[in-house]
Amino acid sequence: MTRAFNFNAGPATLPQEVLEEAREELLDYRQGGASVMEISHRGKLYDAVHTEAVENFSKLLGCPDDYAVLFLPGGATMQFAMLPLNLLSAGRTADYINSGSWAEKALKEAKLVGRVNVAADTSKAQPARLPVADELQLTPGAAYVHITSNETIAGTQWKEFPRSDSPLVADMSSDILSRPFDIKQFGMIYAGAQKNLGPAGISLVVMRKDLAENAPANLPQMLRYKAHLEANSLYNTPPTFSIYLMMLVSRWILKQGLENLYRRNAEKAARLYAVIDAGGFYRGTAAPEYRSDMNVTFRLPTEDLEKQFLKQAEELRLQGLKGHRSVGGVRASIYNAMPEAGVEALCGFMREFEAKNG
Amino acid sequence: MTRAFNFNAGPATLPQEVLEEAREELLDYRQGGASVMEISHRGKLYDAVHTEAVENFSKLLGCPDDYAVLFLPGGATMQFAMLPLNLLSAGRTADYINSGSWAEKALKEAKLVGRVNVAADTSKAQPARLPVADELQLTPGAAYVHITSNETIAGTQWKEFPRSDSPLVADMSSDILSRPFDIKQFGMIYAGAQKNLGPAGISLVVMRKDLAENAPANLPQMLRYKAHLEANSLYNTPPTFSIYLMMLVSRWILKQGLENLYRRNAEKAARLYAVIDAGGFYRGTAAPEYRSDMNVTFRLPTEDLEKQFLKQAEELRLQGLKGHRSVGGVRASIYNAMPEAGVEALCGFMREFEAKNG
Repeated sequence: MTRAFNFNAGPATLPQEVLEEAREELLDYRQGGASVMEISHRGKLYDAVHTEAVENFSKLLGCPDDYAVLFLPGGATMQFAMLPLNLLSAGRTADYINSGSWAEKALKEAKLVGRVNVAADTSKAQPARLPVADELQLTPGAAYVHITSNETIAGTQWKEFPRSDSPLVADMSSDILSRPFDIKQFGMIYAGAQKNLGPAGISLVVMRKDLAENAPANLPQMLRYKAHLEANSLYNTPPTFSIYLMMLVSRWILKQGLENLYRRNAEKAARLYAVIDAGGFYRGTAAPEYRSDMNVTFRLPTEDLEKQFLKQAEELRLQGLKGHRSVGGVRASIYNAMPEAGVEALCGFMREFEAKNG
Repeated sequence: MTRAFNFNAGPATLPQEVLEEAREELLDYRQGGASVMEISHRGKLYDAVHTEAVENFSKLLGCPDDYAVLFLPGGATMQFAMLPLNLLSAGRTADYINSGSWAEKALKEAKLVGRVNVAADTSKAQPARLPVADELQLTPGAAYVHITSNETIAGTQWKEFPRSDSPLVADMSSDILSRPFDIKQFGMIYAGAQKNLGPAGISLVVMRKDLAENAPANLPQMLRYKAHLEANSLYNTPPTFSIYLMMLVSRWILKQGLENLYRRNAEKAARLYAVIDAGGFYRGTAAPEYRSDMNVTFRLPTEDLEKQFLKQAEELRLQGLKGHRSVGGVRASIYNAMPEAGVEALCGFMREFEAKNG
């Protein structure tokens, strides 16, 4: 077995030791004679997994008692729907900041449910950027203000979050737990697991409990935050194996230390941006002050060179570097689990490719 | 490693060879250098998994071209909501047959969304039973008629499905692909995976495509069957690892043969019911003609004996036999993946326990 360096944007590379532990106990969890995916979600063995997952994420995010940590089925796209279904009651307005493809998907779903104000729109900016504070047209008394903390496709990342009197809600799918932040700035955050937290098909949702109170009476239970909150994410049979993997990842993050991960992530990104900026061959697609530490996006002089670049990278086991189908180019996703050696290998290849073709 | 015999109702035992194959390739899927859970859901390697899963389930269920096979996040409880949100338009009525705990949960969710007629109610019957044809008060022109093909808690199973002019919809979570049936009798079937199909947190939904056409315009995409149908369950990043496991299970079912599994399931159930009926010590809780081949439910003379029974069973590595917390007693869930040796061991223990305590 040789593991490749996997730069996929999501599903993405996971810590190797997490996969090894999962493999080790896949048929027999803690000498119980069954896989963790075969045991009751109401039994003691699984309960310990679930409780540790909640506690670890709560600790990593520094959650006060009035915040709940939830594990909900479906990725961020499910949260695009659940958020307005629960929080955007009739007659109110939600502010959405349209910073790119993912922000736009979130606001389109909200428009199906209620009144939406686009508080700023930088989605078409070239190079990609995020709005500055005085561009924001916020609604007084808005139900919430929605941002996308990191745009996976554009390669932009909020370095300082906007301030608002209304609860701030962030889709953090692509940079959750890649850096410390103050959860108390937010009414709610959510993240599809498949980038920094675990396998695809499940989300981490962290919310101020009072925000779950005002959902409409006719909202089905499964779509209701309050039902999940009161049941500690055990309202129905949850995706137990996915939560188990997220628990293992949370342990791994605790072991690394969030501050260490943040420093390492910033260093990994800086090395790649340095290669991009060095010679004029590569062109970063995001404005430097908004560049993401998670998704490094760039173009080569021609599409033909981009094709050659991706092909040769693949041969060197540098995988998943193709930019999103909607924008093309190259994207290196370097989440928490991407080792420094992977970034080093990519930087080396980029320099060589430039030397040969520049 | 010693695998126990695991009679859990769900999450439930999976075929050992499926788990072994998943373990074998967990860190490196097909020499691609990454886990199947780490690769792009839009790439060739995963595409082959996804396509095979769709094809295998379509083949196993004998789906004509006008039916779609979908993999949707969340268990059956999510379908309790999505079904009426998509199919129960304003002004129409859905018929629900209340045959027990799960049927009742489904109809409660539907009531939040639209008008529901309870076409029959045997949920309180003792011994547990299902309605006969002339008990059904069906609504002419109903949007659909909903049944629960197997009641996991009561231990009852429809042996012949009711007939209706409206589309018949079945929650088949606990007996899907345990026996052959004609999919053309149904407008839609759905099943949480965690009993006969794979891990918890994902559902198989099979529906006549035309039924996805009339959802209200303001329904969020993620809750809309049509969005998933048009995208072949790739509208957003799906639970790729869960679908991979379901694909492995579908291969295993194909290898066993559905008719063989059905015969084996019937034999396993018959052996247990024979022990229950032999001596008057055990008492089956479902009326004989409705007894489930999947969940064999019974009581002992006293609750104290039930406690001893469960404790001693556990010591013999016969696990997960406790009846549902809402009804007590004993429940042996013997889905497809429960080997005959497990049923044999349980029958032996039951006879011994009866001999000592009867």
